[in-house]
Amino acid sequence: MEKEVYLDNSATTKCFPEAAELMNRIYLTDYGNPSSMHHKGVVAENYIRGAKQTFADILKCSPRNIYFTSCGTESDNLALIGAARANHRAGKHLITTKIEHPAILETMKFLQSEGYEVTYLDVDENGRVDPAAVYDAVRDDTILVSVMHTNNEIGALEPVAQIGEAVKRKNPGTLFHVDAVQGFGKALIHPKKMHIDLLSASGHKIHSPKGVGLLYIGDGVKIQNIIYGGGQQNGMRSGTENVAGIAAMALSAKKLYDQLDEDRERLYSLKQFFIEKVTKLDGVHVNGLQGTDSAPHVISLSFEGVRAEVLLHALEEKGIYVSAGSACASNHPHISDTLLAIHTKEELLDSTLRFSTSVLTTKEELQYTSDALQELIPFLRKYTRQ
Amino acid sequence: MEKEVYLDNSATTKCFPEAAELMNRIYLTDYGNPSSMHHKGVVAENYIRGAKQTFADILKCSPRNIYFTSCGTESDNLALIGAARANHRAGKHLITTKIEHPAILETMKFLQSEGYEVTYLDVDENGRVDPAAVYDAVRDDTILVSVMHTNNEIGALEPVAQIGEAVKRKNPGTLFHVDAVQGFGKALIHPKKMHIDLLSASGHKIHSPKGVGLLYIGDGVKIQNIIYGGGQQNGMRSGTENVAGIAAMALSAKKLYDQLDEDRERLYSLKQFFIEKVTKLDGVHVNGLQGTDSAPHVISLSFEGVRAEVLLHALEEKGIYVSAGSACASNHPHISDTLLAIHTKEELLDSTLRFSTSVLTTKEELQYTSDALQELIPFLRKYTRQ
Repeated sequence: MEKEVYLDNSATTKCFPEAAELMNRIYLTDYGNPSSMHHKGVVAENYIRGAKQTFADILKCSPRNIYFTSCGTESDNLALIGAARANHRAGKHLITTKIEHPAILETMKFLQSEGYEVTYLDVDENGRVDPAAVYDAVRDDTILVSVMHTNNEIGALEPVAQIGEAVKRKNPGTLFHVDAVQGFGKALIHPKKMHIDLLSASGHKIHSPKGVGLLYIGDGVKIQNIIYGGGQQNGMRSGTENVAGIAAMALSAKKLYDQLDEDRERLYSLKQFFIEKVTKLDGVHVNGLQGTDSAPHVISLSFEGVRAEVLLHALEEKGIYVSAGSACASNHPHISDTLLAIHTKEELLDSTLRFSTSVLTTKEELQYTSDALQELIPFLRKYTRQ
Repeated sequence: MEKEVYLDNSATTKCFPEAAELMNRIYLTDYGNPSSMHHKGVVAENYIRGAKQTFADILKCSPRNIYFTSCGTESDNLALIGAARANHRAGKHLITTKIEHPAILETMKFLQSEGYEVTYLDVDENGRVDPAAVYDAVRDDTILVSVMHTNNEIGALEPVAQIGEAVKRKNPGTLFHVDAVQGFGKALIHPKKMHIDLLSASGHKIHSPKGVGLLYIGDGVKIQNIIYGGGQQNGMRSGTENVAGIAAMALSAKKLYDQLDEDRERLYSLKQFFIEKVTKLDGVHVNGLQGTDSAPHVISLSFEGVRAEVLLHALEEKGIYVSAGSACASNHPHISDTLLAIHTKEELLDSTLRFSTSVLTTKEELQYTSDALQELIPFLRKYTRQ
């Protein structure tokens, strides 16, 4: 097999073999419909019950707070549209930031077309939202604030606990949603303690399959479902549950949280190792904060005088897979909202790549990648100049 | 291993081993994000392209008509809500039948709450809708008619081609949606020829996994997306595609359609065999039509003087899994809309079970089931009378 270094884990991850094995068993043996009254239905339902308990343990909440969706995007849509529809009598104002994932930004645009008003908050040069700015923005008619846990492009960590506190201090009736698609599995998140009412996560970012997501809904939080049908999941999400995906996501989450401290330490040390190597090259800039003030798995680098897409494909030739822009949106690269929001120099906007690691990443792989950059950058710069 | 006879295939099916194997490869090797620009993304995208071509070949349409969702329920929601939102200027009237799946009936209720008007058509004693009644119900302001292909409870086959013709003859601007969740994989369906604009199907009913569905959208059909985000699938369904589920669904569909004629013949002969056996018992009634006037895989039987739930669990003791009511809704059994609509005698409403076969069902399994019924029915009747 050819050399392969996968550094696009913020776009999607390889499944853990144990998760794949579990799904295989569900596909071929425990394939019942959780809504069926017979034994095969009960077995399927038990996978879902077990998964809810796993997530409840991780998020320190009750299993009744856990709902499953088809992806992070659907979780975000359900949180935003569902909260807006259920609470429009209390107001039609929502708040978010300029660096959210399109699953938030596009859903907000839809809500604007439905007559809601949305405030988009600025971030500082490291992509962080100021809790004081959130406090100022919350009004009597603000029904929801949505801020991401970890930015997908530069790995900024938002001060969600402080933001939650600010929201509730200003207006206890305002709901606080956190898009934790990039943060879940990488950091401890305790919704209750952090004043979080709604929290989204995705399976395929944590070594389980595409096609499954999670929404935490706090006790007493009013939210209307957006998909109608058989009334599964207490009517919050109709449609036969993706049993295999749900069970796999729980297995992967448990595996990650069981060894979270060690993994975080290792990922931060890998990140530092890689940054030290690549910043020895001229004209290489790290976007956002470093160390534990940033996400352990995202490294955004701008390469002066190099076109991101060209470098991406040159790395690909060496079996190294990275991402230009966020790349978890569509495959038409466009100027990144996040890079604009942190005031990245114009000439670097199109020279930025994201390297995202996972617990499966090794030091040797990063050494190989850094060596490749060392070889490619001078060459590509010369080529670009010609 | 204990004896196991799975006759609940209308609720969900066992995955084909080839589909499970393919998914395993995708989970562990071809796990890229189809939106990623590098090779691993391209490989993932190719699975989706290939799947679209497979479905286009089966439905005799273009790959551009194929969209993937998370399940049949989401496909139905997208078709109905999406069509209503995109066409409300042409009118706010929709038509459906009284025996649709909750994914249609509950979505129609939601649209009613949004100000749309819905006509619910009656069916005859065999669960069939009269195309003339559809013709009469279509008005100038009717934007959509939704009729299922195959009823999930009694296996009634709706005359969708004639209904499509009637809809278009009365109002060429009215869209025709067909919920083919129970019919896809069991019958040839050619949307264009049948005047179908929108068609829903589900993966887990055709030996691929839960968590994937399909919506055919005809050329020029106006429909608004219901989930917002990264703009995947031409903006029609944002969210990272469930690559493994999509590829598996295509594989299973191809396998089924490659041998459709032989399988249909065998399923119809199994159905006849089973009906002949069980109707030899006193007080056993077949609901709906038989032979090729009905679905090849659904057998709805009413057992005089026996409570469905008791019989279901007695069969379960012998390793036979069947369904009471439709059972693909929620696990709280309730009086079936379909049985009420076909005027099932009141005393039989709670005495009806559905036996649903698949291409994996054997004659020996049906013999075993019929023997079990022969043993259980007299015993349970005696028990019920005491």
